[in-house]
Amino acid sequence: MEQARYAARREHLREIMRREGLDALIVSHPANRFYLSGFELHDSQCNESSGCLIILQNGKDWLCTDSRYEEAAAEHWDRERVFIYKGPSAEEIRSLLKDRVSGRIGFEAAIVSHDFVTRLEPGLALEAADGLVEELRVIKDEAEVRLMEESAKLNHQLMEWLPSILTAGNTEAKIAWSIEKFFREHGATENSFSPIVAKDAHAALPHYNPFEEPHGPTEITPNCLILVDVGARLNHYCSDQTRTFWVGDRPEKRFLDMLNAVREAQRKAIAAIRPGMTGKEAWQTAVDSFAASGKEKAFTHSLGHGVGLETHEEPRLSPRSEKPLKPGMIVTVEPGLYYPGWGGARWEYMVVVEEDGCRVL
Amino acid sequence: MEQARYAARREHLREIMRREGLDALIVSHPANRFYLSGFELHDSQCNESSGCLIILQNGKDWLCTDSRYEEAAAEHWDRERVFIYKGPSAEEIRSLLKDRVSGRIGFEAAIVSHDFVTRLEPGLALEAADGLVEELRVIKDEAEVRLMEESAKLNHQLMEWLPSILTAGNTEAKIAWSIEKFFREHGATENSFSPIVAKDAHAALPHYNPFEEPHGPTEITPNCLILVDVGARLNHYCSDQTRTFWVGDRPEKRFLDMLNAVREAQRKAIAAIRPGMTGKEAWQTAVDSFAASGKEKAFTHSLGHGVGLETHEEPRLSPRSEKPLKPGMIVTVEPGLYYPGWGGARWEYMVVVEEDGCRVL
Repeated sequence: MEQARYAARREHLREIMRREGLDALIVSHPANRFYLSGFELHDSQCNESSGCLIILQNGKDWLCTDSRYEEAAAEHWDRERVFIYKGPSAEEIRSLLKDRVSGRIGFEAAIVSHDFVTRLEPGLALEAADGLVEELRVIKDEAEVRLMEESAKLNHQLMEWLPSILTAGNTEAKIAWSIEKFFREHGATENSFSPIVAKDAHAALPHYNPFEEPHGPTEITPNCLILVDVGARLNHYCSDQTRTFWVGDRPEKRFLDMLNAVREAQRKAIAAIRPGMTGKEAWQTAVDSFAASGKEKAFTHSLGHGVGLETHEEPRLSPRSEKPLKPGMIVTVEPGLYYPGWGGARWEYMVVVEEDGCRVL
Repeated sequence: MEQARYAARREHLREIMRREGLDALIVSHPANRFYLSGFELHDSQCNESSGCLIILQNGKDWLCTDSRYEEAAAEHWDRERVFIYKGPSAEEIRSLLKDRVSGRIGFEAAIVSHDFVTRLEPGLALEAADGLVEELRVIKDEAEVRLMEESAKLNHQLMEWLPSILTAGNTEAKIAWSIEKFFREHGATENSFSPIVAKDAHAALPHYNPFEEPHGPTEITPNCLILVDVGARLNHYCSDQTRTFWVGDRPEKRFLDMLNAVREAQRKAIAAIRPGMTGKEAWQTAVDSFAASGKEKAFTHSLGHGVGLETHEEPRLSPRSEKPLKPGMIVTVEPGLYYPGWGGARWEYMVVVEEDGCRVL
């Protein structure tokens, strides 16, 4: 069943390769590799590949890896078409391809190292061919939408439980670790990114890391704001949600104004997002909403990003994104306002683009 | 203090760059970047760089990153020499370099993508220059050895506690998660790699993943073998330790024979390792030890690897490693024997090479 799904994806990819005039495509990007095979969603270290697929027009595809992964490969792939390299992978993959492919061979230039290509190239007609598998991945099928719903649901459960631990005396780092435990003890296999738990001025830093506080742990105090941006991987698919809380019963007016503006920008963006709208137009909706109260300069990042097997993937809801949205795309909608030295607020939902608009997961 | 240490490392790197005739070096490898600056030991996603350093012969080095990391960068680097790129980093870094460097510019070809180099290259005298920062990192200084001792010590504490949870009815995955919690609740910031907890035949797979069991959870049963290979990052430095346990009071003779052979091979390798010995010779020591009882064919991997800011780094104790070991290198010594379908054993220590031999951490 699973195997059939991966095989069908490889057939779709072959159509795209035909359009591009490619006889072969080397798929090295971990999420792309997994999407087409079920084999290893992660590389073992940032500079250690767990392997690649070679998709061929003739249908005789290869899974190339080293001996550590031989058994894992055989769980997902015909063992006779698993190629185990013993030394540097590029040279051995070159030998494999040399006798079997006479035409153009695509590779993922934004993923593989310059060194890998230099060693692979001699005698082969290589060319950069990025984004072909992503063209499939960007549209989630029904089964994927269901998995994304489950992943988002776990994050919603977390957010309902979370206020119970946002208490004076607890610290950012302890809360972040409690969040990780909640996810893992409810079925997640890992964080989809390191949790952000940011109090007051820390919330003005979109990439704050509560575990690397240079000046010691930050304690929660009565009447403070806390921004929490967290995600987990459940059944391989990532969630990504942000909420901004006030701890205490006397929220500052400035906080309430900021949060209302953020929620309003999010409502307007979600009401506007539909097929045919570009990422830039979606972002502009939020900018316009903030501009109505003169806050647009404090909105310093894009409106959102695709999410799926990776936390950050296509499409982007950014001022540089001119491509139209399509049904089946899943994106975050996460407007925020940031005031250095004081605080910030962000609110994030995941939405799936549907025929007549979008739906919050 | 911290800043002075990073600055001193950059001066050492400049000497190596002079030897190589480089006017500039672009440092993109996360662990290298951190080693020279204290800035971001991780990229945010495998295909998303958190930035790079540009080390210049004239001493006016740059830290290049995007706006998400601006504040984090300023914690570690003169804010006036933090370069924030707004769009694709390669083109903006090219502009930065074009006016400032007329000579040869090295880059880490095994780390940066082919696409990055293609976009960076026009008008610059680029060349591959891998391994220059690693040349420094491979020799740990006294402060690093102390941090590695602390990291190894936490892993020893874990291994002492571990038998208390290796009980019938517990599962591989639950034990793995308990190990992660132990590490984190004793100060570690993350796993240095995903824990391996492998019962019986699973122990014959050097890369077994207890969280991705295709046929459901594996329960511990009375009188079974369990291989546990785990590590954590404490104060940025990684540990890596393996033990193989018998659960129950009736260990099979075959298990005891296997384990004795593994421990004996490890003892002999540790007794032999000293400066001047090559990684290949160290590996051969273990092979010879296994050969004495005819078991050498079941030892299917290298003897060990360097460990530090990365779990796997230079040097390697493998049949392809001809470089001599030097004082200050820290390597794992982890012989193993594997019998597909039945089981396996591995025992791993971390050792630091010293003037007259090596010392177990």
